[in-house]
Amino acid sequence: MKFNGKNISLGKNVKLGKNVRIGDNTVIYDNVEIADNSIICNNCIIGEPTKDYYTNKNYKNPKTKIGINSLIRSHSIIYASVETGSNFSTGHRVIIREKSKFGDYCMIGTMSDIQGYVKFGNYCRLHSSVHICQHSEIGNFVFIYPFVVFTNDPHPPSTVWKGPKIGNFTQIAVSSIINSGVKVGNNCLVAANSFIKTNMPDFTVFAGSPAKNISDIRTIKSKQISGMHYPWMKNFRKGMPWEKIGFDKWQKKKGNG
Amino acid sequence: MKFNGKNISLGKNVKLGKNVRIGDNTVIYDNVEIADNSIICNNCIIGEPTKDYYTNKNYKNPKTKIGINSLIRSHSIIYASVETGSNFSTGHRVIIREKSKFGDYCMIGTMSDIQGYVKFGNYCRLHSSVHICQHSEIGNFVFIYPFVVFTNDPHPPSTVWKGPKIGNFTQIAVSSIINSGVKVGNNCLVAANSFIKTNMPDFTVFAGSPAKNISDIRTIKSKQISGMHYPWMKNFRKGMPWEKIGFDKWQKKKGNG
Amino acid sequence: MKFNGKNISLGKNVKLGKNVRIGDNTVIYDNVEIADNSIICNNCIIGEPTKDYYTNKNYKNPKTKIGINSLIRSHSIIYASVETGSNFSTGHRVIIREKSKFGDYCMIGTMSDIQGYVKFGNYCRLHSSVHICQHSEIGNFVFIYPFVVFTNDPHPPSTVWKGPKIGNFTQIAVSSIINSGVKVGNNCLVAANSFIKTNMPDFTVFAGSPAKNISDIRTIKSKQISGMHYPWMKNFRKGMPWEKIGFDKWQKKKGNG
Repeated sequence: MKFNGKNISLGKNVKLGKNVRIGDNTVIYDNVEIADNSIICNNCIIGEPTKDYYTNKNYKNPKTKIGINSLIRSHSIIYASVETGSNFSTGHRVIIREKSKFGDYCMIGTMSDIQGYVKFGNYCRLHSSVHICQHSEIGNFVFIYPFVVFTNDPHPPSTVWKGPKIGNFTQIAVSSIINSGVKVGNNCLVAANSFIKTNMPDFTVFAGSPAKNISDIRTIKSKQISGMHYPWMKNFRKGMPWEKIGFDKWQKKKGNG
Repeated sequence: MKFNGKNISLGKNVKLGKNVRIGDNTVIYDNVEIADNSIICNNCIIGEPTKDYYTNKNYKNPKTKIGINSLIRSHSIIYASVETGSNFSTGHRVIIREKSKFGDYCMIGTMSDIQGYVKFGNYCRLHSSVHICQHSEIGNFVFIYPFVVFTNDPHPPSTVWKGPKIGNFTQIAVSSIINSGVKVGNNCLVAANSFIKTNMPDFTVFAGSPAKNISDIRTIKSKQISGMHYPWMKNFRKGMPWEKIGFDKWQKKKGNG
Repeated sequence: MKFNGKNISLGKNVKLGKNVRIGDNTVIYDNVEIADNSIICNNCIIGEPTKDYYTNKNYKNPKTKIGINSLIRSHSIIYASVETGSNFSTGHRVIIREKSKFGDYCMIGTMSDIQGYVKFGNYCRLHSSVHICQHSEIGNFVFIYPFVVFTNDPHPPSTVWKGPKIGNFTQIAVSSIINSGVKVGNNCLVAANSFIKTNMPDFTVFAGSPAKNISDIRTIKSKQISGMHYPWMKNFRKGMPWEKIGFDKWQKKKGNG
């Protein structure tokens, strides 16, 4: 019952690719482009206009792009000017505000709240209820867990906004805070419930509030295999581009190794 | 204006009991059974299909059961294969994913997010914005407060998922984290803002991050009566099966005492 | 496509002021009054009845008032008996339960959850995902950031509910907890990730869990100007009544200085 063509509203200059399916009660505003094979479920809003819409008679909705093979689950709201890569997917009730850019294969969990003016790399996975502040910059293969919040204001309220910057392959566990302007390196682990106030070098584990460097990530024993768990890419393949051949081979193939 | 029969979609083999009321714009997918006197408010989705629905032509929606006298508030999404007991109720925008089972008289607060593959006993109460991970197991009379998160992955990301297990009569206060695989006993109190990384014996109070055993719950003085507050069942009756006769008499009557 | 008059439901005795616009699929229950120039976006519910509605045949919806120049963004739910001042605005999916009163120019962020029986002054700003418990009292110019939770039960569960009370010009940073019955003074700063268990005198900064008095707010150097950042009203003007003339002049003009 998702795809009956019931009560769908399409704005002007909406471009739908091949095999695109649109759920009931979904609204797509002007100048939205949805690429081939994508699915927009029920009750979504794509291309939600920004505040000017209410006050500026000459308001023109900026272009919005949803990449191929994407799946936007029900009740999600994606603002005008957002651009996603291919194979983008969301849970339910996701909010993605204006000027957000996503690479390929990103997953944004249920009720996550992307405040806009952010940049994501490829293969990022946000679990439910993650809050990403404006001006955040997030690398590739970054996983973020529930109730994590990124902040951008060193002394609230001010007008000196500076988002966090997160390196590749980094994991940020539940209920952690990443402070304004902090740089987290590649292959890091932010332990659950941490408050990150200082930069994190590559391969470090930080824990606590304020968080401290407690170990090298490569010293954490796996509960899954005999040996070390990190870099996690050797032990976790599901949905990753190295799913079939393993991380090492994939990396060599790509010429990164 | 909830129950005008407007824009309701019913799938195949939907069974509605006596006096069941369905709100406007609600969608009920195939093979859902809603027992007598239950109310499904506006804009809900009951029996939401899992991801296979989009890709498998032969997808068949599993059975979903909502118990008698239930109240599902607006905008809630309950996945196919969920089974609730009697007198189940939800706040608004609740999400309950697949393979979740609930006993009788459970209340799930607004925006709470049940990730699926979980089991709840009877008379559990989740306040708003609680996040319960997959493979959690929760006893009877367990109350959980806002922004609590259960986790199931000891070293994210891995494939060794193990949810927490919570005993009867336990209270888990706001913004706490229950770690993967942790067993919390009966009659425990998780203090607000705690990070539970080790098992909690019966009748203990844990606080801090990481949380430590700070006292016996039976030593906490009540602000409500002269004497001790816990076990709370002696001081709190509202909506409980001992509401009229008190906990002690109820327990004797049941033969538990 | 917000304002096509499509699938709007209006109850009895609904009063709409001049230039009020109502979005598609929005439901307005009995006895709601929306003042001039206000905008209610798509899929909102205004005047949501309380639980009695389901069981009491003689249920009468109490009066609900939305002040002039308000903007209620899509999917928000405002219960019957709520009263807002002028220029009230919400993000998406906000929930405001019964018996909540707001002064003028309040902004309530996306997914924030106001549990009812609360009182807000003027110019309060809640960011996304703030949880305000029943019986909270919040002054003027109070800003609250994501995942902050107010609690009202000293020993859960009990029946001795007492909400926090927050003074004017106070800032409460991300992921903090304000405990039951706590009084936070004027011009305070609750640092991120704090658990406030004791009263906070005026002009104090508290941090930690449990939080301690760590400094006088007037000693925090600004990253925005040379000099001190707080009281923030000297450094932050956007949307404030002193936007054009500055705080000092505004205060003198008002006779507060």
